[in-house]
Amino acid sequence: MEIQYIFELLGTGFFAISGALAANDKARPDWFGVTFIGFITSIGGGSLRDILLGSYPLVWVGNVHFIYAIFAGVALASLFFKYLIRLRRTFFLFDTLGIAMFTILGTEKALSLGTHPLVAAMMGMFTAVMGGVIRDVLTREIPVIFLKEIYATACLAGAALYILLEKAGADRNLNFFLSGGLILLIRVIAVRYKLSLPQFLRDTNS
Amino acid sequence: MEIQYIFELLGTGFFAISGALAANDKARPDWFGVTFIGFITSIGGGSLRDILLGSYPLVWVGNVHFIYAIFAGVALASLFFKYLIRLRRTFFLFDTLGIAMFTILGTEKALSLGTHPLVAAMMGMFTAVMGGVIRDVLTREIPVIFLKEIYATACLAGAALYILLEKAGADRNLNFFLSGGLILLIRVIAVRYKLSLPQFLRDTNS
Amino acid sequence: MEIQYIFELLGTGFFAISGALAANDKARPDWFGVTFIGFITSIGGGSLRDILLGSYPLVWVGNVHFIYAIFAGVALASLFFKYLIRLRRTFFLFDTLGIAMFTILGTEKALSLGTHPLVAAMMGMFTAVMGGVIRDVLTREIPVIFLKEIYATACLAGAALYILLEKAGADRNLNFFLSGGLILLIRVIAVRYKLSLPQFLRDTNS
Repeated sequence: MEIQYIFELLGTGFFAISGALAANDKARPDWFGVTFIGFITSIGGGSLRDILLGSYPLVWVGNVHFIYAIFAGVALASLFFKYLIRLRRTFFLFDTLGIAMFTILGTEKALSLGTHPLVAAMMGMFTAVMGGVIRDVLTREIPVIFLKEIYATACLAGAALYILLEKAGADRNLNFFLSGGLILLIRVIAVRYKLSLPQFLRDTNS
Repeated sequence: MEIQYIFELLGTGFFAISGALAANDKARPDWFGVTFIGFITSIGGGSLRDILLGSYPLVWVGNVHFIYAIFAGVALASLFFKYLIRLRRTFFLFDTLGIAMFTILGTEKALSLGTHPLVAAMMGMFTAVMGGVIRDVLTREIPVIFLKEIYATACLAGAALYILLEKAGADRNLNFFLSGGLILLIRVIAVRYKLSLPQFLRDTNS
Repeated sequence: MEIQYIFELLGTGFFAISGALAANDKARPDWFGVTFIGFITSIGGGSLRDILLGSYPLVWVGNVHFIYAIFAGVALASLFFKYLIRLRRTFFLFDTLGIAMFTILGTEKALSLGTHPLVAAMMGMFTAVMGGVIRDVLTREIPVIFLKEIYATACLAGAALYILLEKAGADRNLNFFLSGGLILLIRVIAVRYKLSLPQFLRDTNS
């Protein structure tokens, strides 16, 4: 549990870095704006999940360490800006680690509150991607989940595997790494081979 | 109650169809994107109402049948896409039936939780129209309620009639059909005769 | 408490005026649209705060007087439109009084629910500015907090002072005016001398 807590803080900080960099991409906002966007990107998904589930207090409201992690992330994004934007590959890795971890944690939390597996998988996916969606709405971009190669779908697949293995009685930590690993694997393959889901309309003609 | 439950599932599925078609109108998103937009359109209004009222669990979180209804709606939208886009008139009817039903159900739920009638009427209107508003924000359109002929206002009128008849002790099912019928009637007349509300500014000059 | 209640209603009504005028600036919406935008601008921030904190009922759901204040604000915005748009200075004063009061009230409420001071300061700022953010998203503008001279940051500074003085045992009403006054002062100076926060990127090069 200790290690997972550290992972969660790291994931929160990383999402704040990614949000801060994404925000700066566009409107050259001031420090407040960048921190605000980093904050929303980082806690948006988990907050929406908890609000939809009626699970209070929200993680960052109950534990201020998550807010510190966000501030640290934004500060790091500022200090190492020049290096970070060059490291597209490192970035991809961190983003993928982040969504993999947040998906499984979100799915787990929803299951622990007694939701149907289908709802739990959705909540896992929401945890991972909705912070980015809210960020995109605020910065007036097309939401990332409508554009990226197999992104939210990879989260759903990982959540589904987690639930299946959980029902089958698998060890929780093993399950965590297997299901998170599936998300990682799908993302890597999708980006490497430029795979995407079929378009809605093309399908209707088949 | 049985019949109403079937109506609710049908309404949920229809709103998913309408959301899926609206999503495809624009960005030609993939299957995930279309399903996601269909989902938001369908459950957005009721979810917002329940979050504002603090009424948990949200309908689709507590009952997975509503999620099945959404998947069915998106699948139907895909299979019958060519026919559906030609049937503008059928579509108008379904949309109007949908907002009429969702308005009354939302008003009823808010009243049953003890809200002031004015709040209950707003909650009814939110139930009917806010899913479409969230959909429009995500797809970067001007929210439909700012554009359509007498749309949300028709919902408010129906909600008001429902509350009046309820206070007057009218039979619930009769009230349901009368108040829902008023919404239907206002919409049909507004579209038929291209009626719209006065603009805000024009009024200030009178 | 009586006087504060009147202040709250006045603040609510004023935010509705400002929302209605902002809405009309753009798309010339109808009466419904303007009232809707006025409503969202006015209650959006406090509602988001209460939803994040899980504090029910929301203020306007539990007390219909706030809804009346909004309707009155929109009606006044319509009646005195020509005068109001000329009074940019009066407007600035009202907006600043509004965000000052809403910040302190929001911070106070969060503290009373036992949150960490850092969370309480954020909640105070959210109360003041998030209604405007939601309004800007719905009307497809760049959110005001990313553009205005030292705006949300002034709220954070006032909230911080309030919390410090509260910990130091200051009289509540004195604290209310001192902390609110700080927000007013920062805003006046920022606008008068066209001050803004440093841009995120410029800093990284220093």
